[in-house]
Amino acid sequence: MTEIDTEAFLADLYALREIGRFRTGVHRPTFSAADMESRRWLMAKLEECGLEASIDGIGNVLGRHRGPGPHLLVGSHIETQNEAGWLDGALGVVAGLALARAGLPVDVVAFADEEGHFSGGFLGSRSAIGALTEAEIDAARNRTDGTPLRAALETAGLAGLPRMRLDPARYRGFLELHIEQGTQLESAGLHLGVVSGIVAIWQFQIVFAGNQDHAGGTTMAERRDAGLSAVRLLAAIDREFPKVCGPRSTWTTGRITLDPGGYSIIPGRAEVAFQFRDVSIPVLERMEACLEALVRESNRRERCPATLTTLSKAIPAPCDPDLMRALSEAAEQVCPGRWQVMPSGAGHDAQNIARILPAAMLFVPSIGGISHHWAEDTSDADLAFGVRALGAAAARVLVG
Amino acid sequence: MTEIDTEAFLADLYALREIGRFRTGVHRPTFSAADMESRRWLMAKLEECGLEASIDGIGNVLGRHRGPGPHLLVGSHIETQNEAGWLDGALGVVAGLALARAGLPVDVVAFADEEGHFSGGFLGSRSAIGALTEAEIDAARNRTDGTPLRAALETAGLAGLPRMRLDPARYRGFLELHIEQGTQLESAGLHLGVVSGIVAIWQFQIVFAGNQDHAGGTTMAERRDAGLSAVRLLAAIDREFPKVCGPRSTWTTGRITLDPGGYSIIPGRAEVAFQFRDVSIPVLERMEACLEALVRESNRRERCPATLTTLSKAIPAPCDPDLMRALSEAAEQVCPGRWQVMPSGAGHDAQNIARILPAAMLFVPSIGGISHHWAEDTSDADLAFGVRALGAAAARVLVG
Repeated sequence: MTEIDTEAFLADLYALREIGRFRTGVHRPTFSAADMESRRWLMAKLEECGLEASIDGIGNVLGRHRGPGPHLLVGSHIETQNEAGWLDGALGVVAGLALARAGLPVDVVAFADEEGHFSGGFLGSRSAIGALTEAEIDAARNRTDGTPLRAALETAGLAGLPRMRLDPARYRGFLELHIEQGTQLESAGLHLGVVSGIVAIWQFQIVFAGNQDHAGGTTMAERRDAGLSAVRLLAAIDREFPKVCGPRSTWTTGRITLDPGGYSIIPGRAEVAFQFRDVSIPVLERMEACLEALVRESNRRERCPATLTTLSKAIPAPCDPDLMRALSEAAEQVCPGRWQVMPSGAGHDAQNIARILPAAMLFVPSIGGISHHWAEDTSDADLAFGVRALGAAAARVLVG
Repeated sequence: MTEIDTEAFLADLYALREIGRFRTGVHRPTFSAADMESRRWLMAKLEECGLEASIDGIGNVLGRHRGPGPHLLVGSHIETQNEAGWLDGALGVVAGLALARAGLPVDVVAFADEEGHFSGGFLGSRSAIGALTEAEIDAARNRTDGTPLRAALETAGLAGLPRMRLDPARYRGFLELHIEQGTQLESAGLHLGVVSGIVAIWQFQIVFAGNQDHAGGTTMAERRDAGLSAVRLLAAIDREFPKVCGPRSTWTTGRITLDPGGYSIIPGRAEVAFQFRDVSIPVLERMEACLEALVRESNRRERCPATLTTLSKAIPAPCDPDLMRALSEAAEQVCPGRWQVMPSGAGHDAQNIARILPAAMLFVPSIGGISHHWAEDTSDADLAFGVRALGAAAARVLVG
């Protein structure tokens, strides 16, 4: 069994946590000063481990193994959500570094903007498989401050650099170690999760058009209250979705905006940010049909017409069976009986890489399931289980 | 019958509309440059009509009749909501000016901040009846930009001026002409509304405490989605309030804020801005009891505890029967058979003045019921009916 230096691995993780530190988490939005510092830190570390480090025109950092193949690609992303956790993304990158340090013939990658600070999201992994156009780069803007992506690339010193394309012939596959971002493992007292597939997210905007009116002068019978129509639709979704969903489907209303938003003003417009997720296309299609039917019913019954706009419909990414088998055997070796197979409810770079390479993922538990928040954490012991199992799986794949 | 110069009255209204004009409406937030310009404009007009004009330390403008009594107080407010209508408030003030021009022994008043740009609201009319403390002035801030009220008064040149107190012995009562801010008159084809009473507004904040989590990693069964708990409570209010309310009760959710508000984040906190209105205290108390019961039920059933905070509970203000009779007779004289008695769903300065003086209100129709919006409007014919009926009623009261 390949020996992973878990001490060095944890030391790397702790060192990376100091770049853009925010409380016990980090704040490294894509192409910020802290994000670029972390990318330079990574390049130095990759060289230290004997890899040939480079950064490309969209911010992807690649550490290329200098010896002969077969090779595996290992990694994740390195930027974070705003004021978020220290492990999301960073864990998978630093685990790749640990495998390289152990002498495994791996390339290590940190894809840019998995977190979607720029419209579109997954910039790096989409670019690396040839699914990001120059026109999309021209149009993309930062969701927080509106900065054009081109300007951000210029400031980061990346403008004009070529964009790397992954060569499928070079790799037996892609492995990504990640935190679970849920409590399935923790609740079951397990230490590792072999991911069966990555859910697809289908995302919608629902806008209700009402009449902005004085909350005292307008009787209940006269009103066209856009907020109330929105509440009724959301209550109907809460009632109907459990009848059509799959066992691990999720649906979320992340935002409700009532315009103009005053106590004494009947909302003239309501906007709802809604999404659902599943690993199965038939289940996704059933949920979409249900949503469409509920919007139609709302439009028959309510005074405020609702408009449903589809923002994105991704395709679920099942993980590669051979890589899953290697991860399962490695998990059993490292944590006998304390692992399970499970879907990933969150999107990951692996779902894009899966379009050109066999890809698979391994999860470690998230304490309390906290994610996308600075309090996100995982025990050192579970982090070590994760990197050891990843190393053992990589060794199996590369030897096999 | 006292002859009102409706031409001069409309010319005044149109002139005032030009101060802080926004599209077909106006933008004159309390103590803004435009608001202070309108107060100076009014003082000049009051003097022109033979009254003795003054402004006090909270921005109230008073035009005092120079002759002997009996007197009536006539007026409203002159500032507006942001980017709002040209008649709300201004109509009642300019109508007072028209009565003074016609030689009626009236004092004309423009109270400050009826619209509540500063926390607390109704600053001017509360000050004039002795119900506004210096401590409250110290604490109040602008709701839009956070400016302390003291600083705003300083900038407006009002700091240090004495605050006027109305002398109940001087007046037979207070009359306020106002737009309806609803469609009751318009729908019924009527031109005037004699107000029976002003509803009280009871205002609440409801906060739901959930768990902010990743929308993919956290199963539906594990979630504590604060937004979903809020939607369920609001749907229950929509279902239950019609069972306890009065015939003219209203209830409104003006704002729903989900934190942090991202598509892929389960809301960890939801905040709801809720109010209801009625003219009857028993009805208000029934609605409050219903709301409290629904919050208790929510807290038994939901995973996200809800906290109900009462922000304000006003007392309804019935209008004075003698003044109502004078207004009714005047309405019948000006528009035979084309008027009705009706409650006011909106709050007005008259509700404060009613605590020390007989007070009553007259409504003219709002086109399409539009209010608190720059498109607010009333036909010139209805504006003229309003001021003529107000003049006739004042003459009856002063002669009687």
